[in-house]
Amino acid sequence: MTCDQLPSPALLPPGFIDLLAADAQTEANGTQALLSVFASHGYERVAPPLLEFEDTLLGGAGAALADQAFRLMDPDTRRMMALRPDITPQIARIAATRLHDAPRPLRLSYAGQAVLVGNGTAGQNERQIGQAGIELIGPDSAQADAEVVAIAAEALARVGITDLSFDLTMPLLAPSLIEQAGLPAATVTALMHALDRKDAAAVAEHGGPIADVLIRLLNAAGEADQALAALQEVDLPEKTRAFSDRLRDSTAAIRARVPGCQVTVDPVEFRGWKYHTGVCVSVYALGSSEELGRGGRYLCNDDEPACGLTLRPNAVFRVAPRRAQPQRVYLPFGTDEAVGRTLRDKGHVTVAGLAPAGSEEEEARRLACSFVSRDGTLVPVN
Amino acid sequence: MTCDQLPSPALLPPGFIDLLAADAQTEANGTQALLSVFASHGYERVAPPLLEFEDTLLGGAGAALADQAFRLMDPDTRRMMALRPDITPQIARIAATRLHDAPRPLRLSYAGQAVLVGNGTAGQNERQIGQAGIELIGPDSAQADAEVVAIAAEALARVGITDLSFDLTMPLLAPSLIEQAGLPAATVTALMHALDRKDAAAVAEHGGPIADVLIRLLNAAGEADQALAALQEVDLPEKTRAFSDRLRDSTAAIRARVPGCQVTVDPVEFRGWKYHTGVCVSVYALGSSEELGRGGRYLCNDDEPACGLTLRPNAVFRVAPRRAQPQRVYLPFGTDEAVGRTLRDKGHVTVAGLAPAGSEEEEARRLACSFVSRDGTLVPVN
Repeated sequence: MTCDQLPSPALLPPGFIDLLAADAQTEANGTQALLSVFASHGYERVAPPLLEFEDTLLGGAGAALADQAFRLMDPDTRRMMALRPDITPQIARIAATRLHDAPRPLRLSYAGQAVLVGNGTAGQNERQIGQAGIELIGPDSAQADAEVVAIAAEALARVGITDLSFDLTMPLLAPSLIEQAGLPAATVTALMHALDRKDAAAVAEHGGPIADVLIRLLNAAGEADQALAALQEVDLPEKTRAFSDRLRDSTAAIRARVPGCQVTVDPVEFRGWKYHTGVCVSVYALGSSEELGRGGRYLCNDDEPACGLTLRPNAVFRVAPRRAQPQRVYLPFGTDEAVGRTLRDKGHVTVAGLAPAGSEEEEARRLACSFVSRDGTLVPVN
Repeated sequence: MTCDQLPSPALLPPGFIDLLAADAQTEANGTQALLSVFASHGYERVAPPLLEFEDTLLGGAGAALADQAFRLMDPDTRRMMALRPDITPQIARIAATRLHDAPRPLRLSYAGQAVLVGNGTAGQNERQIGQAGIELIGPDSAQADAEVVAIAAEALARVGITDLSFDLTMPLLAPSLIEQAGLPAATVTALMHALDRKDAAAVAEHGGPIADVLIRLLNAAGEADQALAALQEVDLPEKTRAFSDRLRDSTAAIRARVPGCQVTVDPVEFRGWKYHTGVCVSVYALGSSEELGRGGRYLCNDDEPACGLTLRPNAVFRVAPRRAQPQRVYLPFGTDEAVGRTLRDKGHVTVAGLAPAGSEEEEARRLACSFVSRDGTLVPVN
């Protein structure tokens, strides 16, 4: 096949890309930096496979993701396998099985690639998603919620993102309120749809006895104190009040652990939280609308409480400041091995000449080097 | 789903595993160490996707791997995609397309996961293969072959594997000799099969005029000097002599760049080299039969010369010595944030108590910590 016959690289399937040079390097080093913060807090690395049997991968917490998973037949066992659309349910499986008897709190971390079927529209979002995250399995407390958020904040600070917004929600709060209002099923559907769209007029139309409370909660979304004050003022049934209290406690614990970050609360948001049962969080850099990560509380496969947060390196390293690249030094053909070794030990990148060059300065420039080594002395290339 | 109903984790598909704790951490950190050596020699990171369109992924150098690739239909484009069974052909694609105009020599590195269909037997080998490698695209010289091998040796030394054997072969050498002998097609097939099995009796039976030379080459396999001397002594047609000369030159260049390593040459080995056109190498740690990596010379999609070497982190970190794990320190509930930060900055792993513990020493022991922090002073746990 000649180059002319090759499909254009633009013909990668939509949602899949080649990361090149500086982008790939930044993402790889940065992900390692995130993971080193996770490890420093005692989160032990686990690495589940890209593929599992469909019934294992998409059971338990993974069931909510079944429509996003590619399937393949294993020619060996003749059983269906699925490509993971999310790593968190795999961690939940490991916690419930291989690490069932490991001491709790169980702290696990992971980094890898997940693949989504996507939404089938041209120009759609990424379908190969990098994930780097932590799961804290065992405790169900505001302290546990806050640890996960605080470690994510520390990891993002390590890669240079310090001005963060944590947007908190409690996806079962509004449904619990609606459930206890005893509304007809069709009304419940209409109301959930209205809440999903933040459509106050439709909430008023369908909300009946709880319309007033729901609209106050809808309007309360925003800065955490104000939202929590609004939640405090309204009259809530006991089960809903428990969700509200926990949201308040977790918010306070997060604020104590991550002073100075922006915290918002949307008490009625539930969209996009598929298997979560408690406080959920989306992470943003201030001034950017791209979600850097998300997580929250859920139940592991054996109903054990768990809380996790997954950062998306693809997004994180679009926002993170770039580190300076090390300087490239051209080693003319025949340069002593030891010279290169010394330069690399000092943090330089060496680029070896594999044959004599007409002009070594010219060759250095052509290969994006800033210096030529002359017996270990760096001579700048103009 | 309760824990009792869960499939056993042993029910991952054959060839796929969960890496846990120390193994996962060692492989992740170690792979990063390998990549940092590659980067220090000017190899720029690229990260192609896990999936591509089948015709892109399995065209060019990838065609030889078509029977090892899982296929999936993209519901968006209705075209077949394939999971990569090997990353090298993707790098060749990038070099020939997106980086077609980048200066040569083009030095690229990569790390990621590849997935093989496997051989369909129970207890088969790994089907998810980690790969970490380099490709040197443009030059076709013994110096280029040696650079790739020398950098792999330096990367392995960085993770503690210093006693290496590089097993060299030239997969087109024997076929070129056979081709020029003008044997009948059935004889050629029988002869290739005999060589593949290293069956000297069958080589004698089918080899006709070249039987003697082939048997001498077969017997020459082993320590490089002896094998190359045997090659030198036999009478070879011009084309085969060119392969032999290059094998000698590349061996000499590798020896000069990696003094002290064991080098063997098998002049008639060709099995397992599917798209290679020049010197090929398998890397072993002395005393271990597990291949740590392999690579060699091939042609990029647009017939540009290229040479690469891919290490398999799964294998490398079964052989590499383990680094000491950092010490885990238990932080009793309520420990000041700054205490933990200072300990982590010193390289300790901190494990936070999320609630008051009856006995903090007991809790520390239970969580595999060696110390309890008392206002920042480390008290050993017996």
